[in-house]
Amino acid sequence: MAAPVTVYGPMLSPAVARVAACLLEKDVPFQIEPVDMSKGEHKSPSFLKLQPFGQVPAFKDHLTTVFESRAICRYICDQYADSGNQALFGKKEDGAVGRAAIEQWIESEGQSFNPPSLAIIFQLAFAPMMGRTTDLAVVEQNEAKLAKVLDVYDQRLGESQYFAGDDFSLADLVHLPNADFLVNRTSKAGLITERKNLARWWDDVSSRPAWKKVTEMQSAPRPS
Amino acid sequence: MAAPVTVYGPMLSPAVARVAACLLEKDVPFQIEPVDMSKGEHKSPSFLKLQPFGQVPAFKDHLTTVFESRAICRYICDQYADSGNQALFGKKEDGAVGRAAIEQWIESEGQSFNPPSLAIIFQLAFAPMMGRTTDLAVVEQNEAKLAKVLDVYDQRLGESQYFAGDDFSLADLVHLPNADFLVNRTSKAGLITERKNLARWWDDVSSRPAWKKVTEMQSAPRPS
Repeated sequence: MAAPVTVYGPMLSPAVARVAACLLEKDVPFQIEPVDMSKGEHKSPSFLKLQPFGQVPAFKDHLTTVFESRAICRYICDQYADSGNQALFGKKEDGAVGRAAIEQWIESEGQSFNPPSLAIIFQLAFAPMMGRTTDLAVVEQNEAKLAKVLDVYDQRLGESQYFAGDDFSLADLVHLPNADFLVNRTSKAGLITERKNLARWWDDVSSRPAWKKVTEMQSAPRPS
Repeated sequence: MAAPVTVYGPMLSPAVARVAACLLEKDVPFQIEPVDMSKGEHKSPSFLKLQPFGQVPAFKDHLTTVFESRAICRYICDQYADSGNQALFGKKEDGAVGRAAIEQWIESEGQSFNPPSLAIIFQLAFAPMMGRTTDLAVVEQNEAKLAKVLDVYDQRLGESQYFAGDDFSLADLVHLPNADFLVNRTSKAGLITERKNLARWWDDVSSRPAWKKVTEMQSAPRPS
């Protein structure tokens, strides 16, 4: 029987990879339903019922649909609290304070890290794949913005092993897709690997089995 | 005795107003600690200990510090679960599914609504206050982006009374500061008031006592 949890979208999408990483950390079986964005399938009426903005991923668990990758990750952690990595969204005994320590860095990712890193990834990795011209001015502008954010991150990761403390958590996980693209698919790896604490963190988090499985899924041949 | 909950930053900051609205909905007493951004107080070493990116608000509750307005709002709802508006972050009986229904629209606000609306507000309301020139090209570009988001919102608010269903929730609250600026301090009120369902929603949510109190606090004379 097919798993009741379905993620709609291509694995190469950072937001789809974010959700897949969370499901793998939580040991929740799932299936990927490809969405051919080059054919505009993400703007079809049936897809818009799952994701009103026509973006990927869309997500379905039995009859529940959720959109926005970070909201989906939170849902997975709450709904499957007793499965897989149980510290991912804070230990029960740490309560609201423990969760807030994670949430502030999830929000930093969404508000401060994602916009400039995604802009760089788009220009240096996706544009060439799509046959578009890379806009180097956009890369330069966003590299300057991202460097400031990464300076704060490097300082934080000099104070604690992971963003939210001693445990790998959603705060770290949400950063993985864009960080991996930067390091492995652009010429800007140094933004991460040349910052001491960030480099130590990256070696650690990128070698987790769940993330290695995501990158295997990303490099698998597409279904024909 | 001073309230143990302190919000650091000027009330005119949309992110500060977001946190104040949440505290008022939850009936949590708090004090506002002004931060003079024109004097660079948000970049001082003591402030950076509270908020490593040097942005407002910073937030303190007893010994707990939290940054990022949406993370602070979630913390307030979790930590003060039994106080004030108890449906604000989902009713207990609705569990993970109820919370996900709210989270997906909080993320939409952060990812899709906030960037273009904040850009417009900055150009049309803050730039004149700061003696800077308004860049109308930026306004136009972001107005086009925002219109697409608001079309999705208008459709959603034709299906249900509030973003996440029958109850006012954090999903609605996080939108209030930027929406209020657009409607009351720019020439772009029509983006909201000329969309039927969004206009109905705005009349409702902006007349809530907690939000009216925020706007009173915003128009109060600054402490000299």
